[in-house]
Amino acid sequence: MGMIGGGIGAFIGDAHRRASRICNDYELVGGIFDADQEKSREFAVSEGINLTRVYKNIDEMIKKELALPKNERMQVVSIVTPNALHFPFAGKLLKNGFNLVCEKPMTMTVSEALALEKLVKEKKLTFALTHTYTGYPMVRQMRDLIKKGVLGTIQRIDAQYYQGWINSIIYGTGSRITGVWRLDPKHAGVSSCMGDIGVHAFNLIEYTTGLEVKEVLSDLNSVKEGIKLDLDGTVLIRFSNKKLKGVIRASQVCGGLENDIIISVYGSKGSLRWGQENPNYLYHYSDTEPTKIYKPAHGYNMKNAEEAHTMPAGHPEGIYEALANIYKGAAKSIRKKKFDPCEFPTVHDGVRGMKFIHSVVNSNAKGNVWVKV
Amino acid sequence: MGMIGGGIGAFIGDAHRRASRICNDYELVGGIFDADQEKSREFAVSEGINLTRVYKNIDEMIKKELALPKNERMQVVSIVTPNALHFPFAGKLLKNGFNLVCEKPMTMTVSEALALEKLVKEKKLTFALTHTYTGYPMVRQMRDLIKKGVLGTIQRIDAQYYQGWINSIIYGTGSRITGVWRLDPKHAGVSSCMGDIGVHAFNLIEYTTGLEVKEVLSDLNSVKEGIKLDLDGTVLIRFSNKKLKGVIRASQVCGGLENDIIISVYGSKGSLRWGQENPNYLYHYSDTEPTKIYKPAHGYNMKNAEEAHTMPAGHPEGIYEALANIYKGAAKSIRKKKFDPCEFPTVHDGVRGMKFIHSVVNSNAKGNVWVKV
Amino acid sequence: MGMIGGGIGAFIGDAHRRASRICNDYELVGGIFDADQEKSREFAVSEGINLTRVYKNIDEMIKKELALPKNERMQVVSIVTPNALHFPFAGKLLKNGFNLVCEKPMTMTVSEALALEKLVKEKKLTFALTHTYTGYPMVRQMRDLIKKGVLGTIQRIDAQYYQGWINSIIYGTGSRITGVWRLDPKHAGVSSCMGDIGVHAFNLIEYTTGLEVKEVLSDLNSVKEGIKLDLDGTVLIRFSNKKLKGVIRASQVCGGLENDIIISVYGSKGSLRWGQENPNYLYHYSDTEPTKIYKPAHGYNMKNAEEAHTMPAGHPEGIYEALANIYKGAAKSIRKKKFDPCEFPTVHDGVRGMKFIHSVVNSNAKGNVWVKV
Amino acid sequence: MGMIGGGIGAFIGDAHRRASRICNDYELVGGIFDADQEKSREFAVSEGINLTRVYKNIDEMIKKELALPKNERMQVVSIVTPNALHFPFAGKLLKNGFNLVCEKPMTMTVSEALALEKLVKEKKLTFALTHTYTGYPMVRQMRDLIKKGVLGTIQRIDAQYYQGWINSIIYGTGSRITGVWRLDPKHAGVSSCMGDIGVHAFNLIEYTTGLEVKEVLSDLNSVKEGIKLDLDGTVLIRFSNKKLKGVIRASQVCGGLENDIIISVYGSKGSLRWGQENPNYLYHYSDTEPTKIYKPAHGYNMKNAEEAHTMPAGHPEGIYEALANIYKGAAKSIRKKKFDPCEFPTVHDGVRGMKFIHSVVNSNAKGNVWVKV
Repeated sequence: MGMIGGGIGAFIGDAHRRASRICNDYELVGGIFDADQEKSREFAVSEGINLTRVYKNIDEMIKKELALPKNERMQVVSIVTPNALHFPFAGKLLKNGFNLVCEKPMTMTVSEALALEKLVKEKKLTFALTHTYTGYPMVRQMRDLIKKGVLGTIQRIDAQYYQGWINSIIYGTGSRITGVWRLDPKHAGVSSCMGDIGVHAFNLIEYTTGLEVKEVLSDLNSVKEGIKLDLDGTVLIRFSNKKLKGVIRASQVCGGLENDIIISVYGSKGSLRWGQENPNYLYHYSDTEPTKIYKPAHGYNMKNAEEAHTMPAGHPEGIYEALANIYKGAAKSIRKKKFDPCEFPTVHDGVRGMKFIHSVVNSNAKGNVWVKV
Repeated sequence: MGMIGGGIGAFIGDAHRRASRICNDYELVGGIFDADQEKSREFAVSEGINLTRVYKNIDEMIKKELALPKNERMQVVSIVTPNALHFPFAGKLLKNGFNLVCEKPMTMTVSEALALEKLVKEKKLTFALTHTYTGYPMVRQMRDLIKKGVLGTIQRIDAQYYQGWINSIIYGTGSRITGVWRLDPKHAGVSSCMGDIGVHAFNLIEYTTGLEVKEVLSDLNSVKEGIKLDLDGTVLIRFSNKKLKGVIRASQVCGGLENDIIISVYGSKGSLRWGQENPNYLYHYSDTEPTKIYKPAHGYNMKNAEEAHTMPAGHPEGIYEALANIYKGAAKSIRKKKFDPCEFPTVHDGVRGMKFIHSVVNSNAKGNVWVKV
Repeated sequence: MGMIGGGIGAFIGDAHRRASRICNDYELVGGIFDADQEKSREFAVSEGINLTRVYKNIDEMIKKELALPKNERMQVVSIVTPNALHFPFAGKLLKNGFNLVCEKPMTMTVSEALALEKLVKEKKLTFALTHTYTGYPMVRQMRDLIKKGVLGTIQRIDAQYYQGWINSIIYGTGSRITGVWRLDPKHAGVSSCMGDIGVHAFNLIEYTTGLEVKEVLSDLNSVKEGIKLDLDGTVLIRFSNKKLKGVIRASQVCGGLENDIIISVYGSKGSLRWGQENPNYLYHYSDTEPTKIYKPAHGYNMKNAEEAHTMPAGHPEGIYEALANIYKGAAKSIRKKKFDPCEFPTVHDGVRGMKFIHSVVNSNAKGNVWVKV
Repeated sequence: MGMIGGGIGAFIGDAHRRASRICNDYELVGGIFDADQEKSREFAVSEGINLTRVYKNIDEMIKKELALPKNERMQVVSIVTPNALHFPFAGKLLKNGFNLVCEKPMTMTVSEALALEKLVKEKKLTFALTHTYTGYPMVRQMRDLIKKGVLGTIQRIDAQYYQGWINSIIYGTGSRITGVWRLDPKHAGVSSCMGDIGVHAFNLIEYTTGLEVKEVLSDLNSVKEGIKLDLDGTVLIRFSNKKLKGVIRASQVCGGLENDIIISVYGSKGSLRWGQENPNYLYHYSDTEPTKIYKPAHGYNMKNAEEAHTMPAGHPEGIYEALANIYKGAAKSIRKKKFDPCEFPTVHDGVRGMKFIHSVVNSNAKGNVWVKV
């Protein structure tokens, strides 16, 4: 595996490396870890990576890697840069036959996203988008329970992603400066809150229900004078079934909130609710039976959930293991092994996400009107 | 105390009577417990109420009560009928000088609501609207903490009220037939979900923050063919402060959900969240300190919260005690004793609620546009 | 109903009166509310009780009440004094044919307890001991699920009752002075912690499982120099079935703990756990199914649980309603109506409790050895 | 790193390998993965380990490793065999200068444990005992808060470890056969429940409080005819401070329980409680302030807790990361870097654990009497 971005001080790069080591199918052999080459090399030294494979730029990287024997070259590259750089790197790598793991949101524009999707199809490559929360066993259990029909008719969908960390940045009291690029349209794209976290909520809805959001009506909030992007917002959503409605709520200004993602799907016979902060609990509400809590490592779970957890029951696994599950799915795909479509989000999920972000921003810009996704 | 409605089999009438007994300031002496006079008398017998004070109609009741010596007559009447009957009874009683406790939503129309408000002011009477959740000690603590400024700038408000019980009615599987009048516009008014429960969420927002919702944009859902009213919906909300936005979500079709009311107020320095199903826990999230859980019967609470709980810490009080607190506040007012405005919701809250319900229904009818409240 | 004790400032007397009003089968007509007759009368005035029925002492009370026509006299007397006074009052009242509701622990000694039991049998009276926690619907559901056999073989029982309020008294920082009599053997008996709260844990075990604790081995702790009674302790327990063991833990010195009662019964096929601070949740753990949460007001509950909750699902009831359920059970018994033995704890539970307290104190005094209950 | 045990199908070996990869200071280069050499080699192939370093026995392993250049040989060996084999392997490896990571319980007897402690001191080696729960950030926070004195005088300590998985083995309904050796004294030693899990509870007490358990009185339960070891038990505990008492409860027969470890330390000013199933929540109860919940990745935590968590707040880490933290501490020690004593449990904790297990078994065998640890 190679990596673009994720050098010293970048938590998301570290997360990807840990996840890749957990699933034990990857070895980090080189990459471009920082725009500043000195820092990139410094990082490589700290990780014990051979400096011959620390590259100046993407063209050099592609050229030199392709020059290696096939079984020695990087079989997959992980892209963990700020959003604006995903597309240029991903495009070149796909064109040259590299499988990819890529952070979300996938690109800056919908057309970029479609271009990547086209390339993946043409080249028959694996492209895993790290919507990490889909790697949690109980999210997979939720998906499979819904598929099985335990909810009856789905009547309402409600997904939330609330954080508070941007307060410390906009009010100048915090120290998490790595987040600042998220407020700059040049690096973050058209949206901060919806682009960074609202899209996770959106993805969890489509992932767990298998339904597509067809239309959105949004009301976004930049919260403070001088902020150019949304830091908060609510999105009304509609589906093909006109009798089903829902809502996506996301915010980065909920003081003291950490990473409060909750997805709830409500049906005529029951409802399912999962929250990320206690990710090993899936709640199933029913009109006729006691509330049930599904937990990992039990015979009562379906196959995909069980395969996504390794310890015996009662030993909590966390976010790294969720990400490792996505890496594991991607590895299966790269090796042409059998896997279930739920095992990793694909370039298509990336396209959906970009369409969501842009239609949400458009709806708000046009005065809170319905916009097709 | 007299009572209109709430005879045999009516759970809400029973709740009001229990609450009035808990707070020990009331004695039920008569009323009109059922439209069917036989049932009304049967109920009176079961409660040990003198049959001479079981009346045929409101005119008789007013006439005969006024004929009694002042210290013997009903000092307050509790109205617990279906929605459509609130106004006719309340109007006549106010005109004749009776203090009232009234179930919500207060009336069928905004003009009725305004008419009652006018009467209450003219007659200088006490009118308590039973938005019961405002009687919980931790809701009062939430209100007073916000007043004190612990949240910094309020940046987002999110209130939810999710139930599932109407599924059993619309799919014909359940037995809670008393609910059926809620689906009939003649008895329930212009809305089912927003009128019955969305308005509670709205009230909790105005109660805890002291802010007024200025505009709404709603998307309502009748869920099933043949249903005439909303059973589900989402309402975008705005305030005077243009940088503050929020959302109200309510549904009666969330299978298996019971009475899942949550009010969250998010600020620049912290956030508060309270949920009705564990009403003795108030969560305070902060960027700089551990999450705090406020519970009743502690010196750290403010005065209004402490006065709303009677047992030592760790002895959970519930919904009846919340309702009793509202009765207690009304009793103080009737006796001209000192009380805090938070101690019971007034006719003005009823006017606000009616304006909310009607503007939400209008927004939806006009195609999901902003409507002033 | 008459009452002994429970005058101004006594929270437990107020709790009993509220509970009696909630269940609506009682009317407080007189009693001896305070040893100081002036205070007793003052209290009666505040409650609107006729001063002719505020008595100087128990002999006067019995004499004058018996002189009243049968349908006017007190049919039941509620005893809410400090422990040492339970027996003298209860004995005289039973001898004269009064039904009783009595606070726990029932007496100071086992022989007193046996004497009361004998009297109750001879006189065929109703004696309800207010082990309040048995009035919670989910405790009754737990009892009936165990009876039904859902746990398989019971293999371990563990009950806990942890409080922290006595810290403020022994370190002189708090204001809850009403608790001080609990530290004085003359008023509290041979034990503080086990007598006041350990006995609740013991009672919950025998109530929910229907099993009798046969032997105890205790280690008690007076915690601080100068304290004469136990404030903390652990009790190993054994049953007829030699392959079943368990433990009772109780403490009044767990800083910051409120009223943390948890009863867990563990079996070969599953386990049940109930905690008082969220009393409307009963957890059922199973080896083969998701964890289940039982809540009140659902068709899946058994009859006794359902009858002990009055509101629709999701409306939490609390400690007053639990106590009211015991009053309701006692009222049924007094009226010779049909009731389930679970509906109120009897004088026999009082005898069991006294045996438990004394055997625990003996075990500790003898150096932590096994003592028969 | 080398490894003894942990071949195909052994979950604990897999856990150790994942943990070592997460912390990124280790590379697995060889070992003896299974008593059956074929299986051992098969496992090595699956892991990509060079077969030249898959050894027949410990003597061969030591000889060949010592023959390698110092910077190529195993610097540390991880022992993850059944209990009985820990000592023979550990003894030889220590004598030959290998640092060790070892599963608990450390040995079969106290004298073996003391022998290992002596060797570690003589050879100045690193010996990390994997009491995994000490690797959780909130356990470290608990330790440091207690050290800081937030609880006042410690007045009660209560640790619990409840599981239910052995039910399926003793009743023959389950499939987790790898557990069967735990019921055989030859492989598991003198105890099943106390040796496997009770000792974790004991370790958490000494780890978080810094206090030593001085005396124990136990009541153990083999639960079913034919079972030779304890599957359940309660242990009364005492400390140097005669006014402090506590209890350890452990069971493997609590049907449906998973891995329910809770440690509570109760003091005069407040109490702390941590449970493993939601390991990122540490509860701090106080008499004068709202209950506080500490969570990882916050400036309010102390240094050791913060260093044990890598993700931003709200991203739950789990059991693998806890184990990785112990591996990380051991790596620091091996590299002679500065570390806090809390960063990994040592051979001394192993000695303490063996003393605990044996004194508990003795106390029970002698008829539930006090035994010095």
